[in-house]
Amino acid sequence: MEQCVGEASVRFREPVEIMASASVVGAKEGQGPLGALFDQVGKDDYFGGKTWEEAESNLQKEALRMALAKANLEPKDVRFLFAGDLLGQSIASSFGVNEFGIPHFGLYGACSTCGEALSLGAMMIAGGFAERIACVTSSHFASAEREFRFPLEYGNQRPLSASWTVTGSGAFLLRRAGLQEPGKAEDEAGRQEFERVGNGVGWQEALDAEKDREGKCEEKGRSIRAKARIFGITAGRIVDFGLKDSMNMGACMAPAAADTLVRHFKDWGRSPADYDHVITGDLGSIGRAAFLDLLAMRGIDLAEKHLDCGMLIYDAEKQDVHAGGSGCGCCAVTLSAWILKQLEEGFWKRVLFLPTGALLSKTSFNEGKTVPCICHALVLEGP
Amino acid sequence: MEQCVGEASVRFREPVEIMASASVVGAKEGQGPLGALFDQVGKDDYFGGKTWEEAESNLQKEALRMALAKANLEPKDVRFLFAGDLLGQSIASSFGVNEFGIPHFGLYGACSTCGEALSLGAMMIAGGFAERIACVTSSHFASAEREFRFPLEYGNQRPLSASWTVTGSGAFLLRRAGLQEPGKAEDEAGRQEFERVGNGVGWQEALDAEKDREGKCEEKGRSIRAKARIFGITAGRIVDFGLKDSMNMGACMAPAAADTLVRHFKDWGRSPADYDHVITGDLGSIGRAAFLDLLAMRGIDLAEKHLDCGMLIYDAEKQDVHAGGSGCGCCAVTLSAWILKQLEEGFWKRVLFLPTGALLSKTSFNEGKTVPCICHALVLEGP
Repeated sequence: MEQCVGEASVRFREPVEIMASASVVGAKEGQGPLGALFDQVGKDDYFGGKTWEEAESNLQKEALRMALAKANLEPKDVRFLFAGDLLGQSIASSFGVNEFGIPHFGLYGACSTCGEALSLGAMMIAGGFAERIACVTSSHFASAEREFRFPLEYGNQRPLSASWTVTGSGAFLLRRAGLQEPGKAEDEAGRQEFERVGNGVGWQEALDAEKDREGKCEEKGRSIRAKARIFGITAGRIVDFGLKDSMNMGACMAPAAADTLVRHFKDWGRSPADYDHVITGDLGSIGRAAFLDLLAMRGIDLAEKHLDCGMLIYDAEKQDVHAGGSGCGCCAVTLSAWILKQLEEGFWKRVLFLPTGALLSKTSFNEGKTVPCICHALVLEGP
Repeated sequence: MEQCVGEASVRFREPVEIMASASVVGAKEGQGPLGALFDQVGKDDYFGGKTWEEAESNLQKEALRMALAKANLEPKDVRFLFAGDLLGQSIASSFGVNEFGIPHFGLYGACSTCGEALSLGAMMIAGGFAERIACVTSSHFASAEREFRFPLEYGNQRPLSASWTVTGSGAFLLRRAGLQEPGKAEDEAGRQEFERVGNGVGWQEALDAEKDREGKCEEKGRSIRAKARIFGITAGRIVDFGLKDSMNMGACMAPAAADTLVRHFKDWGRSPADYDHVITGDLGSIGRAAFLDLLAMRGIDLAEKHLDCGMLIYDAEKQDVHAGGSGCGCCAVTLSAWILKQLEEGFWKRVLFLPTGALLSKTSFNEGKTVPCICHALVLEGP
């Protein structure tokens, strides 16, 4: 229990490293403010699939394949995989990562799944159960609309409080600090296979840049520099303020984000001053206002420090996304493409990453139930 | 990494204890061969809910409440909760365990979820991240039919290869070996509240018997004897033999069960002789035949040692369940009510518990996809 702090937090004796990550997004995300930073932007949103669900599976497949390629690792080098998505029975994951053959733990935490996966993955490593872990999550605008709302063909109108589900997948490779990577020749065949399957742009350039930077891919016992380190977590609990509006999920999730943040500060004995930024997953503009209000009631002023992936990924006005972006992919691709970069390059020293999730379903909505929510926190620092 | 064995297995330095468990089932399960062993049998299958989904949530709520009551613990004594079910977006869990306020990790592993929850929960404890963990899973015949197949009112015919989704929930409390329980007076108010909400029979008797047996509930630093111990796991990977028949899930899952079992034997250097029984989750009679055939092809004869929860929970002929029982609840309630009892009372020394799951959804089925499957293994021994 020496790694436990407070009621629901874990502080690792030795931080766990994020050694590589990859982001694959759709066309709309590619046109957003972070567009140039993603590893791959799809030419269309099918990603070679025949259905939206297959498209989402391909997103996961490509993200994981790319993360492995960046680290010059093979699936067998990864001990466990944590994966999840928004679809019923998590089919995007089951059909997305199955061919890698990595021992698999399926998760459901709605849009917080990226945080849940990284939390559990990091604990597996810090607990001594694995040296390398992969975490993959995704969402897709069209598969999510079918799953939660209406078929696209129906052309329903969306209220201004609604968010836009991000088409994207982020994959992360975690490792025990200081672990040497297995040396091996570059897998040219594997890379060609990847290029054949993918239909995106930018991937080859990203990989080349990555390899130039590492510069050691072919040596034995390579030492790849980590992108960032996970120092610990605060696990979220389910918070339900009784809201029922599935078209205003930011407001539904804000209480969960505030609950986890307050418990995090208490468990860790920290305050906003200890972080360069506190970055929520997908509260959007309305959720952000509610979140800041709830914190102000607790005497916490977070206005200056708070960022939200849902507000970063799109230009809300120009791209007509209303309250902002959402979905498991939203915070995953923002973390991979932008947040880790800020940490890696030293612009930020330490951030709190707070992915939020709304645990509703179409059935629970139709039965008039509330929207219970959850939020997991991760303490991230530079390498 | 000293706790890792082989490619996908973990062997704990110190086994993790299952300190208490509870099972709540529906009327049909109460009439089956294990009927007298369940802690609570519902008078109807609504469990006080207005919808089938609410009924399933209430199953989880009652199972967890009962497990906590048996151990005379409060929710705050439990550090993390792992929960999951079959429904889209795991709503049975989100609405079932939310009021306990325990930091929550949502899982999706279809009918293998009980094994996934116990695996991750045990690793959390063995890794030093928690002293006590709760694991809860459930399924409900009527909510599963609506989720995966047809509304009950439609009255569709079921082929003989189909299984019957178990209405039931199993809750388990794990703890670090040798941990003393916090002393406190019995919570009479809490128990009355539970009885008010529950509508089942047998619960009071079970609790009284439990308390008689423990006999130490009111002392400080109580020492409750464990029911069984988890010595380690072998994590499953997704296995897909290309089968598409959602009305024959036993056959779909058999390859995943065989894959995990073979890898378990390899990782641990064991054979069937090391176990009193190898107990799969819900292969049913057709899946069992396929499973034994697949193993025979690898030179493993498991016919004598193999049991299947799906075949134990119902009298297949008299209860007209065709291939057997299935669902997250199937292996969870069988483990709680029967398997743990056999271990606790010394009839068995060591078993391998192999919950199996079919990772399909209605959407993936309708889109003509295969049924990818998974199976997690846990090594259980008596206290």
